[in-house]
Amino acid sequence: MSMQKIVALCKRRGFVFQASEIYGGINGFWDYGPLGVLLKNNIRDAWWRSMVLCPGMGKDGEPLSMVGLDSAIIQHRETWVASGHAGGFSDPMVDCRESKARYRADQLMVYEIPADKGGAKVTFLVATEGTDETEALKKHATKIIRSNQGKPGDMENLPAPRSYNALDEATRAEVYGPATDTKGTLTPPRAFNLMFESYAGAIQDESSKVYLRPETAQGIFLDYKNVLDSSRVRIPFGIAQIGKSFRNEVNPRNFIFRSREFEQMEMEFFCQPEDSRMWFEYWVDARRKWWIDIGVKESHLRIREHDKDELAFYSTGTADIEYLYPFTAPDFGELEGIAHRGNYDLTQHQTHSKTKLEYFDQEKNTRYLPHVIEPAAGLTRALLALLCEAYTEDPSRPSPEVLKFHPKMAPIKVGIFPLVDKEGMPETARALYMGLRNKYVCQYDAKQTIGKRYARMDEAGTPFCVTIDGDTAKDQTVTMRDRDTGAQQRIALDAVPRFLAERLD
Amino acid sequence: MSMQKIVALCKRRGFVFQASEIYGGINGFWDYGPLGVLLKNNIRDAWWRSMVLCPGMGKDGEPLSMVGLDSAIIQHRETWVASGHAGGFSDPMVDCRESKARYRADQLMVYEIPADKGGAKVTFLVATEGTDETEALKKHATKIIRSNQGKPGDMENLPAPRSYNALDEATRAEVYGPATDTKGTLTPPRAFNLMFESYAGAIQDESSKVYLRPETAQGIFLDYKNVLDSSRVRIPFGIAQIGKSFRNEVNPRNFIFRSREFEQMEMEFFCQPEDSRMWFEYWVDARRKWWIDIGVKESHLRIREHDKDELAFYSTGTADIEYLYPFTAPDFGELEGIAHRGNYDLTQHQTHSKTKLEYFDQEKNTRYLPHVIEPAAGLTRALLALLCEAYTEDPSRPSPEVLKFHPKMAPIKVGIFPLVDKEGMPETARALYMGLRNKYVCQYDAKQTIGKRYARMDEAGTPFCVTIDGDTAKDQTVTMRDRDTGAQQRIALDAVPRFLAERLD
Repeated sequence: MSMQKIVALCKRRGFVFQASEIYGGINGFWDYGPLGVLLKNNIRDAWWRSMVLCPGMGKDGEPLSMVGLDSAIIQHRETWVASGHAGGFSDPMVDCRESKARYRADQLMVYEIPADKGGAKVTFLVATEGTDETEALKKHATKIIRSNQGKPGDMENLPAPRSYNALDEATRAEVYGPATDTKGTLTPPRAFNLMFESYAGAIQDESSKVYLRPETAQGIFLDYKNVLDSSRVRIPFGIAQIGKSFRNEVNPRNFIFRSREFEQMEMEFFCQPEDSRMWFEYWVDARRKWWIDIGVKESHLRIREHDKDELAFYSTGTADIEYLYPFTAPDFGELEGIAHRGNYDLTQHQTHSKTKLEYFDQEKNTRYLPHVIEPAAGLTRALLALLCEAYTEDPSRPSPEVLKFHPKMAPIKVGIFPLVDKEGMPETARALYMGLRNKYVCQYDAKQTIGKRYARMDEAGTPFCVTIDGDTAKDQTVTMRDRDTGAQQRIALDAVPRFLAERLD
Repeated sequence: MSMQKIVALCKRRGFVFQASEIYGGINGFWDYGPLGVLLKNNIRDAWWRSMVLCPGMGKDGEPLSMVGLDSAIIQHRETWVASGHAGGFSDPMVDCRESKARYRADQLMVYEIPADKGGAKVTFLVATEGTDETEALKKHATKIIRSNQGKPGDMENLPAPRSYNALDEATRAEVYGPATDTKGTLTPPRAFNLMFESYAGAIQDESSKVYLRPETAQGIFLDYKNVLDSSRVRIPFGIAQIGKSFRNEVNPRNFIFRSREFEQMEMEFFCQPEDSRMWFEYWVDARRKWWIDIGVKESHLRIREHDKDELAFYSTGTADIEYLYPFTAPDFGELEGIAHRGNYDLTQHQTHSKTKLEYFDQEKNTRYLPHVIEPAAGLTRALLALLCEAYTEDPSRPSPEVLKFHPKMAPIKVGIFPLVDKEGMPETARALYMGLRNKYVCQYDAKQTIGKRYARMDEAGTPFCVTIDGDTAKDQTVTMRDRDTGAQQRIALDAVPRFLAERLD
């Protein structure tokens, strides 16, 4: 399975478009088209339902106590000082003093050119990871060695590259960057903050500087006290929210996997410190099951507990739920992270805001800062995973691409077609459509051959198609066609609602 | 009815919090709490349903052709050059050279001080609209006149102020600004753009400058061609989207009415030029009815067609649906605008992007740029209108504040209470709760007196409360209590689902 095919299908059928495409696009930003927004809303609603409206049961057999929230994207800048994002949320960057290009240091690969390939004249050359390294590097090396009166050899079988991060100062001075013919133009790596900056208010100075949130989670901590004061939640309880976040990624890539504007579904679960490990395990398990529930194969998921040296200093455990993306396969990539954050965030905000954030535990008659378990999933990343999961090639079909979404997640549930656009068929089909559209997203389609209409619905991932034909008027039956098998069966027209209810509700 | 009371209830019960409140807040930004986000989602879903999932019927008796979209907040900066926002979306601003304060020119009120009140020494003084003008002005005038060895009179009954906008240069030089004791420190008014600026990518220069969208509409025009190519919509059709927008208002005010971050529900309806006036009228009418459907009294709405001199040059008609807000009463304020935008936006984007955006009309065998009708509503403003509409004071109740939401819009539909937290009542109540929560947002509450629990539900706007009491175990009946009348009736426990379905579905 190739990502190119999925990306092409997404554009062709209206799942995902490059943002501002008519202006040449804008790197790292994506728009969700008619089918994409329906799919995204289905994922959003399934998460919200499982988290806020119908959460699972706690160990006491009672449903968990959960509430929702929708906090602003722009918060007071001190939020990000307290959270550590203003100081530490950065990638090491390297500038080229000559070309003004900027690179992520960990993606600069330094190749040493052996003496017999021209290395006597030009020792170190750099390529950026992710480009077609060898081709670009070969051309660049050949050109520079020649301009230095050296004799370039072939550039195959170079020694494995080192990371620019690892070089000492003397070696850096010998390095030719990817976009220059002069050596020593690359700066040492330095921190570049990933938050988008702006200014709120008429004057642009430090006091009016704001950031676009890089995660929705901090908004939950900011409102934790307001939620406690305005609702009746008692520990343990969760606050959940869905919304956009922004990270000024230096190198957005892999379609919507790493984009600069994305949507998150995050929940902070506040609990007693001594129960926190139990809740951590609860949420890892609950979240894993949720992904399976919405149609991800169990074998395409992997739980990876972070090693001690990967953990943030305040965390006693973090587990990633990983997915087998086409661009990571055979390896897995992050889909959701479940972090044990201790009381780090509340401590930080209590200190920085000078507002008491302690919880008064009536049962124990004591005050403390709750510990927090955070299941943090990407909504747009979930959409990507479901697209990858659903994408199926079947050369035996007229149109060989099928999206086998779980019926609950499919953007369109039912295609409704009159076999031909006359002889009373459109009227019957339209009546069925009008009866069903209050309950399901339906597509009425009367154009082109029936085979093409099925193919279009296969590409959209529509699980069921109903065709009204010449026999319908006679015996009040229709053809019900199944997306996954292509099988067709004859059922009574008035049995259609029940047929769908059994499979979709 | 006072806004202060509504704002206080919103905070106390978790509808709306000031964003970053623990850090002293951030002007013009708001968070939606547990009840607020449920209410907002209900409005969002009602709009989406009426626009995208179950749109109304066209003149041919067929349902309108509508699709959804979710475009990025950050788009290519050329978008806003084409739309006119980069050039023209601005307020005239005045800076004080001394205090560095900045003001909206139309909110600077210039008072001329008569000779007998000290005007021989200090002629013009400025106050900012919306502050307690007279008190601040009196103090300021008295102080400056004294420091100029003048003799201040009382400052009552000053002549009516003029706008700073209207002053000539010579007069401006005589003016004392609100935050200075020196005259002539205010600059002439100049344009200040309302878009939030940021930079995408590692380098901050003109080429990487981006804006946060000030409206969702332009994203629809950017994807118009992608939608045409990927779906089967034919003119007339609409593209709808819901999402956040940002305007760097100089003076955010009236709670969430004019905030810097807000949420919009916009739809662009593309049609033949000759049908556009008909569709304009169609949408004004359809949208007015929608507001009534979700619970706004007809008498609290007003349609105001813009006068010719108010219209943008490209528009042949714009109508505002206005609402009787407490802070505008007895006047009305904007709730939604329905604009006839002609083909202005498509023309602009076609020119700037050099991409053909013409529609090929198969029926007429001709190409043209469709005309566009735009119903543009505020989601967060809708929430404000519904809160104002629902807010009712009833001194006869134990807790005198009731939110009489339309049941379909109420954040919580049903309160479920065991009269006392023992004798089998909690078990019965919990079973009812578990049976209903898959369908409705329910609140289970076993704490405090039943009167206090009803009062809490009144404040949350919950239309129905069910109480399980000592008789329930004997005769399988419960008390059903109505929010608006306070009336209680006895109904069978197993009749509760039907009772609710009749009133909520």
